[in-house]
Amino acid sequence: MGKQRPKILDCTIRDGGLVNNWDFTEDFVRNVYHSLNEAGVEYMEVGYKNSPELVDTNGAGPWRFCDDDLLKQVITEKKTTKLSALVDIGRVKEEDILPKSDSVIDLIRVACYLKDIDKGIALAQVFHELGYETSINIMAVSNALEYQLVEGLEKVNNSTIDIAYIVDSFGSLYNQDIQYLIDIFKKALPNKKLGIHTHNNLQLAFSNTLLGKNNGVTFLDSSLMGMGRAAGNCPTELLVGALKNPDYNLAPVLGLLEKEMIPLREKVEWGYTIPYAITGLLNEHPRSAMALRKSDDKDKYKDFYNQFMTVERH
Amino acid sequence: MGKQRPKILDCTIRDGGLVNNWDFTEDFVRNVYHSLNEAGVEYMEVGYKNSPELVDTNGAGPWRFCDDDLLKQVITEKKTTKLSALVDIGRVKEEDILPKSDSVIDLIRVACYLKDIDKGIALAQVFHELGYETSINIMAVSNALEYQLVEGLEKVNNSTIDIAYIVDSFGSLYNQDIQYLIDIFKKALPNKKLGIHTHNNLQLAFSNTLLGKNNGVTFLDSSLMGMGRAAGNCPTELLVGALKNPDYNLAPVLGLLEKEMIPLREKVEWGYTIPYAITGLLNEHPRSAMALRKSDDKDKYKDFYNQFMTVERH
Repeated sequence: MGKQRPKILDCTIRDGGLVNNWDFTEDFVRNVYHSLNEAGVEYMEVGYKNSPELVDTNGAGPWRFCDDDLLKQVITEKKTTKLSALVDIGRVKEEDILPKSDSVIDLIRVACYLKDIDKGIALAQVFHELGYETSINIMAVSNALEYQLVEGLEKVNNSTIDIAYIVDSFGSLYNQDIQYLIDIFKKALPNKKLGIHTHNNLQLAFSNTLLGKNNGVTFLDSSLMGMGRAAGNCPTELLVGALKNPDYNLAPVLGLLEKEMIPLREKVEWGYTIPYAITGLLNEHPRSAMALRKSDDKDKYKDFYNQFMTVERH
Repeated sequence: MGKQRPKILDCTIRDGGLVNNWDFTEDFVRNVYHSLNEAGVEYMEVGYKNSPELVDTNGAGPWRFCDDDLLKQVITEKKTTKLSALVDIGRVKEEDILPKSDSVIDLIRVACYLKDIDKGIALAQVFHELGYETSINIMAVSNALEYQLVEGLEKVNNSTIDIAYIVDSFGSLYNQDIQYLIDIFKKALPNKKLGIHTHNNLQLAFSNTLLGKNNGVTFLDSSLMGMGRAAGNCPTELLVGALKNPDYNLAPVLGLLEKEMIPLREKVEWGYTIPYAITGLLNEHPRSAMALRKSDDKDKYKDFYNQFMTVERH
């Protein structure tokens, strides 16, 4: 694994889509692409590439499926910024993925839990054969037993996958936890590039991402104003502003935030709130906090916390 | 300097007062005291103890002055949580400070710039003679030349001051910067306890505070929901939830947030916004961003940023 300059992967449309059911207009996605390109951001994730037959579509916008014809219509001219899409194992039909030569997508990322790592690797290798860059994003590593994680990573190391991601699914990992995982990933994956995807439940998303960058992790996930599920992600604007890369330019990102993200933030909620801090502190999936934030009890923090404390949590 | 358990100092009323001109009711301050006490928080800063004759009072609430009679009326019964107050050099008359035996205040903190360190030390030593615990909080260290900082710290080390604070006034310091400063402070101040006061411009306040804690810094400043000037501070709720101290109890803090802080946050703004991120990234005082947030241009990020980029900044 040679020393590589870090790259930013903005996943606003994909992870942010979990907030607004992928209800982004084509113009919105086009503006994001152009601005990220001007800003020098290396990758933009345009959505999930799950197959409509295999998920509950339930009014979801098109960026949950990333039909190739739609993508070509929106990104009419590929510039420097590459495109990525995420798939969940079990939610994509392999025959729905075109050969890379017929697609505007460059990188396909496969998300799976550690128990499904064999399926995840097999699927990613299919995409590799089709000509794509590939990554595997192992979710919920904070709940994995270490020997199982190491076994899984060693299989990844022997695969054709390009990148292995450290994913803090619950936003529950502290700096020292990320450092610990980086050391495990580096040791088990000498042949691979590493990536990091963080959540902001404990206001540690940016700090954890920088920690990755300072330790040789080269793929840094982020989103505009941190837009992503629940407490959201590492903010793209902070990475573009902080990383010492002469090709980065903050002004186009700031223009995009004021034009597109501020009006959107008035309609839908994401980012640090107390219920997400609570699930992060407790290393719990944020789904209960997401339900709370949509209810009339959205600011009943004490009762919400006490539910975890008084009910058996095993 | 023996190994000490870290202590939380909640400065909501003092630093948060910079947001609402210290317009907290007596009941609010009383509720904060009782809840922090239930939560096991070691110190509560009840305000500034500047002298009304020496500052522009301009409608400021009483917590800018912390009259001793008022404090006794509000904190009728001292419990475990100790009280602190901050003074600025040049803004307090020594004769306005009672002997400790006649006051409910335990700790007086002196804020000064490095160029005024001699005055700061002299003033803190007066309060030491009166019987108080004392600290010195050197502001804007990110703009100090290192040899001058070391000279100043060595004077502090030879004083009667108890605690020296690392203060990230502009919220511009990254984890590695804080680590660097901790090493300087530790080396120059073998006789003193250390404290840390952070701002959240880069969403690093909690991370930087934990970094301090993990490196032997024992006084950790925070505020409820991070309420403080501009981007605010390290959130008290995250420290109480994250630190492994069996005496801490998160539920009273959460109750306080939902009862007092949510209604307040609807009236006044603090916390991470893009203009504060910009001044943090540029290591600038947040005053220009604070002015922007009060204007009709509050979300004109690109123009705000370009002003710094196109005007000579020296």
